[in-house]
Amino acid sequence: MQSLEKEAQVANEYLSRVAKEAERKFDEHLPVEKDRPHRLHEAMRYSMFAGGKRLRPALVKAAFEMFGGKGESVWYAMSALEMLHTFSLIHDDLPCVDNDDYRRGKLTSHKAFGEATAVLAGDALCILAFELMGKTGNAKAIETLAHQLGTFGMIGGEMTDIECEGKTVDLEIVDYIHYHKTAALIEASLVVGSQLAQASEKDIEIIRNYGRSIGLAFQIVDDILDIVSTTEELGKDAGSDIEKGKATYPSILGLEKSRERARELYDESIQILEGLSCDTSILRAIAAFIITRVN
Amino acid sequence: MQSLEKEAQVANEYLSRVAKEAERKFDEHLPVEKDRPHRLHEAMRYSMFAGGKRLRPALVKAAFEMFGGKGESVWYAMSALEMLHTFSLIHDDLPCVDNDDYRRGKLTSHKAFGEATAVLAGDALCILAFELMGKTGNAKAIETLAHQLGTFGMIGGEMTDIECEGKTVDLEIVDYIHYHKTAALIEASLVVGSQLAQASEKDIEIIRNYGRSIGLAFQIVDDILDIVSTTEELGKDAGSDIEKGKATYPSILGLEKSRERARELYDESIQILEGLSCDTSILRAIAAFIITRVN
Repeated sequence: MQSLEKEAQVANEYLSRVAKEAERKFDEHLPVEKDRPHRLHEAMRYSMFAGGKRLRPALVKAAFEMFGGKGESVWYAMSALEMLHTFSLIHDDLPCVDNDDYRRGKLTSHKAFGEATAVLAGDALCILAFELMGKTGNAKAIETLAHQLGTFGMIGGEMTDIECEGKTVDLEIVDYIHYHKTAALIEASLVVGSQLAQASEKDIEIIRNYGRSIGLAFQIVDDILDIVSTTEELGKDAGSDIEKGKATYPSILGLEKSRERARELYDESIQILEGLSCDTSILRAIAAFIITRVN
Repeated sequence: MQSLEKEAQVANEYLSRVAKEAERKFDEHLPVEKDRPHRLHEAMRYSMFAGGKRLRPALVKAAFEMFGGKGESVWYAMSALEMLHTFSLIHDDLPCVDNDDYRRGKLTSHKAFGEATAVLAGDALCILAFELMGKTGNAKAIETLAHQLGTFGMIGGEMTDIECEGKTVDLEIVDYIHYHKTAALIEASLVVGSQLAQASEKDIEIIRNYGRSIGLAFQIVDDILDIVSTTEELGKDAGSDIEKGKATYPSILGLEKSRERARELYDESIQILEGLSCDTSILRAIAAFIITRVN
């Protein structure tokens, strides 16, 4: 476990460094509050600058650099991935969906700005993400990203998550939800970064599988943290999965078996990376970070 | 007026023909209900097949053909534009936004499927539109489309529309709302069709200005019809603009002056088309259709 934590520390440093650069770019790419519609621009910035690890932009950049990508287009994709993630959180938090009041220790968008503005702020972030992706000039990457995000990806996972609330579901359904709701966008971050770097189809397939493994691990750890952490540590209501009757790993396998499953997925992800001939150290570190994180 | 109605008849025939072909493509491009998440796919299809003139796809096709475009990519863009329009209607109808129960004579999405599903169905149509646009291989067209759709386009108009409800506003603001809420996507349809046909920058600028004129005319006629038509004729609640205190042309200029303004915009649009050297007959006919339509 010692070495796992050392690896995670490497990832932590990488994430902090990338987050700082990425946030400067978010600021450049987001519309300013002094432009009309002022309050909508304010709401978009409020949610984009509410903190967060900026994991998805970091994965875009890590994959891009690992495959020798050059040029500025990666920054558009990094902003786009964080905007898409933020869009999904804003809509998920809405009263008619998960009805959450806090996110990352701050009021959720609809609590701070009202529901109509929250709906439109989410929409606007999603649309702006595609405008930025358009600037990369890579239509194929746009198609991939939208596919991972749509009803066969993230949105499909969210919908099924809602439909299964309060129901008894089996592991196959929880896997479906987690792969789609969470892993799909994590996978997309890596694939888009690789596509922008002109990686080979074979390498993209490997990175995709790595993304699926760490993506599922990420959500299992999320489920575990929702149970074992305090609200203060999480910045959102702890224990809310149980309260809402959410389909989670611990609810089916229990905490210990869920931890084992996350560890297995970590091992799997490291093994998958062995198929690549480039320097995979950052991705290995990020996998370690994902299963050791505490918030 | 006789010749205007003849022109409109030409447009009517064109619209009917294109609508039939386009709807076959929507069916191909939309996910099927038997695939998970079933209910979400059902909701997407429900709104996409709720009728409508399919004006935006027709504008994509008309511009594409006018500039000599060849190939199948135009069908992706046509479906995309209708999906984006439908996405905007679903979210606009939500209880927290305009709170409408009927649209085109049918229950609105949230009335038929519940609010959470309506939010996600709108999101999913928006995302699928960009996936289809990705298939055109034209990243520049994607950037254009997203820009026209975002906070400096359609979403900006919707937000300002909501903010101005019940307030006394001047013509400058109503123009801002109408240009953004409605004209932006009409303009985008024409520009994207032209971009896919590899039209010149100069010609695209002309078609953009034509789009702005007929787009504004379209919304002014909408405002007028909301007052002079019955609910049955409109398929949605007539008189709802006044009830909601919406900022409209008739509320500021009165009916007669609004009609004059629509007619001026028509004349303007025909004049703009004179700058093109290709056959503009369909676009002239569509302009006539827009100001003579009764629903």
